[in-house]
Amino acid sequence: MSEAISTKLNLNLISDRFNVADFGCASGPNTFVAVQNIINAVEDKYHKETGQNPAENITFQVVFNDFTNNDFNTLFQTLPARRKYYSAGVPGSFFRRVLPKHSFHIGVINYAFHFTSQVPKGVTDRDSPLWNKDMHCTGFNEMVKKAYLDQYSADIKNLLDARAEELLPGGLMLVFGSGLRDGVKMSETAKGMVLDFIGASLNDLAQQGVIEQDKVDSFSTPLYIAEEGELRQIIKENGKFTIEAFEDIIHPYGEFPLDPKVLAVSTKASFGAFLSAHFGVDMMRKVFELVEVKVRQEFSRIQNAKPGMQYFIVLRKN
Amino acid sequence: MSEAISTKLNLNLISDRFNVADFGCASGPNTFVAVQNIINAVEDKYHKETGQNPAENITFQVVFNDFTNNDFNTLFQTLPARRKYYSAGVPGSFFRRVLPKHSFHIGVINYAFHFTSQVPKGVTDRDSPLWNKDMHCTGFNEMVKKAYLDQYSADIKNLLDARAEELLPGGLMLVFGSGLRDGVKMSETAKGMVLDFIGASLNDLAQQGVIEQDKVDSFSTPLYIAEEGELRQIIKENGKFTIEAFEDIIHPYGEFPLDPKVLAVSTKASFGAFLSAHFGVDMMRKVFELVEVKVRQEFSRIQNAKPGMQYFIVLRKN
Repeated sequence: MSEAISTKLNLNLISDRFNVADFGCASGPNTFVAVQNIINAVEDKYHKETGQNPAENITFQVVFNDFTNNDFNTLFQTLPARRKYYSAGVPGSFFRRVLPKHSFHIGVINYAFHFTSQVPKGVTDRDSPLWNKDMHCTGFNEMVKKAYLDQYSADIKNLLDARAEELLPGGLMLVFGSGLRDGVKMSETAKGMVLDFIGASLNDLAQQGVIEQDKVDSFSTPLYIAEEGELRQIIKENGKFTIEAFEDIIHPYGEFPLDPKVLAVSTKASFGAFLSAHFGVDMMRKVFELVEVKVRQEFSRIQNAKPGMQYFIVLRKN
Repeated sequence: MSEAISTKLNLNLISDRFNVADFGCASGPNTFVAVQNIINAVEDKYHKETGQNPAENITFQVVFNDFTNNDFNTLFQTLPARRKYYSAGVPGSFFRRVLPKHSFHIGVINYAFHFTSQVPKGVTDRDSPLWNKDMHCTGFNEMVKKAYLDQYSADIKNLLDARAEELLPGGLMLVFGSGLRDGVKMSETAKGMVLDFIGASLNDLAQQGVIEQDKVDSFSTPLYIAEEGELRQIIKENGKFTIEAFEDIIHPYGEFPLDPKVLAVSTKASFGAFLSAHFGVDMMRKVFELVEVKVRQEFSRIQNAKPGMQYFIVLRKN
């Protein structure tokens, strides 16, 4: 990211005021690390290229955006005490405009670029040809996949339209997230396998009579893990941004720490809220107890999974 | 307020972007009414003087500021659905800088201009000559009064210094609040009498052994209800703003609806949080049960109290 800022950000854009916006910030603390890294990189570039002291010349403001029901109280109460930027929280869906025109210089989206604004219609309806009988990915049939991809494409285009208006000319969007290498199916990756364990665990609980089968059948998540080619295509079709970089930043030792417990816990962190909202928090916990057992049983298969992709995309506003 | 904006705001200040900031917004909903009134008045002025449609030409952004521990979640979740402005929450003490330089056009402070940043040292210490043995106002001796006024003056000067930097040149601060007419003592007003009932009720409960006397003796509130002359003096000594208007907007029928229950409840709304923080919420409720009894007993005296003051101050940045 520092390199991208050093090489892709126009020095003219760094003046007395520099605004950073984090879209889908959640309630911290990851966002604080990301925005501090951005600020450090901007200061470094400014110092190297002008010889001036950035601390004396640039006022930074950071805007933290997320849905209105995000926990902004926790975000605000955990802001780093020694931060050297003004901060503001902006509530609202990032699929729409949330900021005035031309109001920030660099935007960042950290692992929130895979959300859709809703589960596509039909996907949770057992009588529809679009019904997604599995939790998320395995057996994702072509019609379900198309419904998700259509929803995702429309949502991401709205997101890019909104950011293109809010971003200053020449500004950058930095996007970190989870994707798929072209031709790899979600169900072939470690993350996909764990998602399938969630689906299988839900069905186990339904068969035991612990959850109603109807409730399991009508569950699906508002997100889509796209292939690199799909992402490139959506951004290209939108036309508001140029892809300056698209990198697969997967860790050389693989996507996950190779430990069943950590794998179950990290999946719970990502997906627990969706399960809690649909089934209640106690049931969510029960599900993840079963998921952890399945992860342990199938761990050698997971270790041999195809790699997913952790992408870093740099977009420049056209 | 509409009149003040119509006559005091420079038309040149109304351009494509207009920012309103509410300092001490609490968690709504009063702040939403105030900012909407400001926006309406700015739009009216713009429409009358330019003949142009404000909705097409001006983008409004409203910044809601309060302490970091304010309930911003409730604020955000209750924002009016049909608002026509971008909104942002800004956490931090309004006695210090919370916004970048020159970032808003009109600021408003609604009934938060009487707060101090802390209870003056000594006031809660029974062994100090500054000990305020009464809750708040009656018997406020000269030394206690001076300690509070010194603290208040220093705090308000910091507040004005900070706003003067954040406000655009020519911008206005609109301040609504509770004050005292010159020469009237707090204890002579209806509000002061109710505050004294809080003090008396606390002492009753201490004598009954329900609260420790120490806890009552060490209680005081971080606020100071200033006389008009004191407010004018502080603003003048600070020197960053000119007083464009200073009006006593007291309702012709008096400060309070003339009903004991409403009077007790409105005092609880203003002071309950301070009591809860010091004594716990159950004890706070007990105190206000006693306060309501005292209000009923002394209601004819309250009805004959000297009027307080509800001020509306318009400050223009120099």
